[in-house]
Amino acid sequence: MAELVLHQDPRSGNCYKIVLTAAFLGIPLATRDYDIMEGETRTPEFLARVNANGRIPVLQIGDKFLPESNAASWYLAQGSALVPADRFTQADVLRWMFFEQYNHEPNVATLRFWLHFVGQDNLSDAQQAQLPAKRAAGKAALTLMEEHLNVREWLVGDAITLADIALFAYTHVCEDGGFALGDYPAVSAWVERMQALPGFVPMQP
Amino acid sequence: MAELVLHQDPRSGNCYKIVLTAAFLGIPLATRDYDIMEGETRTPEFLARVNANGRIPVLQIGDKFLPESNAASWYLAQGSALVPADRFTQADVLRWMFFEQYNHEPNVATLRFWLHFVGQDNLSDAQQAQLPAKRAAGKAALTLMEEHLNVREWLVGDAITLADIALFAYTHVCEDGGFALGDYPAVSAWVERMQALPGFVPMQP
Repeated sequence: MAELVLHQDPRSGNCYKIVLTAAFLGIPLATRDYDIMEGETRTPEFLARVNANGRIPVLQIGDKFLPESNAASWYLAQGSALVPADRFTQADVLRWMFFEQYNHEPNVATLRFWLHFVGQDNLSDAQQAQLPAKRAAGKAALTLMEEHLNVREWLVGDAITLADIALFAYTHVCEDGGFALGDYPAVSAWVERMQALPGFVPMQP
Repeated sequence: MAELVLHQDPRSGNCYKIVLTAAFLGIPLATRDYDIMEGETRTPEFLARVNANGRIPVLQIGDKFLPESNAASWYLAQGSALVPADRFTQADVLRWMFFEQYNHEPNVATLRFWLHFVGQDNLSDAQQAQLPAKRAAGKAALTLMEEHLNVREWLVGDAITLADIALFAYTHVCEDGGFALGDYPAVSAWVERMQALPGFVPMQP
């Protein structure tokens, strides 16, 4: 495999997904850090060379650049048990990964960013106006996970897959965004199950 | 393959992705229609049996249910040229599919839904407040596609992949959401390229 460099902000759960995937698979990963609060992923150089979308994470594979956290995790995990080969099961893993980016991240992760890093007093009026809807949608996403995990140990099948990694990243720090993990006991047990796995590495504080 | 039934609202671009994927692959697909404007995907029966997330599309495969448009398209297209086997190329297809769900659909598709189906006068104050940000983010997503397609015929590699199908669905009707397709000539040429492919079927009006 070509040399791998993760362009990241270590505080980002999206970046952590890739770090955790690599850790479970024993894949060495170099990192290059950016401070998204300082606009370091919006510089002309970053936009021209790393990601025209101005976002991290980006996984650099030799001289190629792969944006999008879940796509980068997929690159690392293809052919491993984290990406099951069975047709339905593989699509079902992606089902949870798309749910994560559409229903979970824009609410659970965005509220963490706004409330924990930006600070509520610094939000724009438009952002303030979105808080109730994002709280409700974040709770709905966590409730959907709770009902699913109430009768299962893992999101798909009988073992950890990329679906679990993708949803673990922001779920386990959901309290930073004002959600109470204790309201979701099956999710809480699943978080502990993830943290007990061999190879698990915590998110950088 | 087990019998396939697409649970859909034919006006939804997310549903159309699956119809178009099946058409290109020559896979027969039965359909069952719901009216999302009438709440037909939020009934207790739908939530319990089809999708706890209360959304269409859902691809039914025998007695299994697969939500999320891009996951369902993946199920149909696995092993075909629409999902390249090469490790980087396959991940790069997913990169655009996740971009579609995170950066494109919540802006380009949501504005189409709000302005073309719900009607601007019927939007809530919170929705009205989001219009400027969604217009700007939608333009940014279309501009990113324009710059990428300005030097390429397809989003990934040298032929159509699921990335093109995922992004075609709402891009080709972006004018319903107030975007001007003519502002993006490379995207417009790509739309015409898609429509000229053998097996192409239009979205239901």
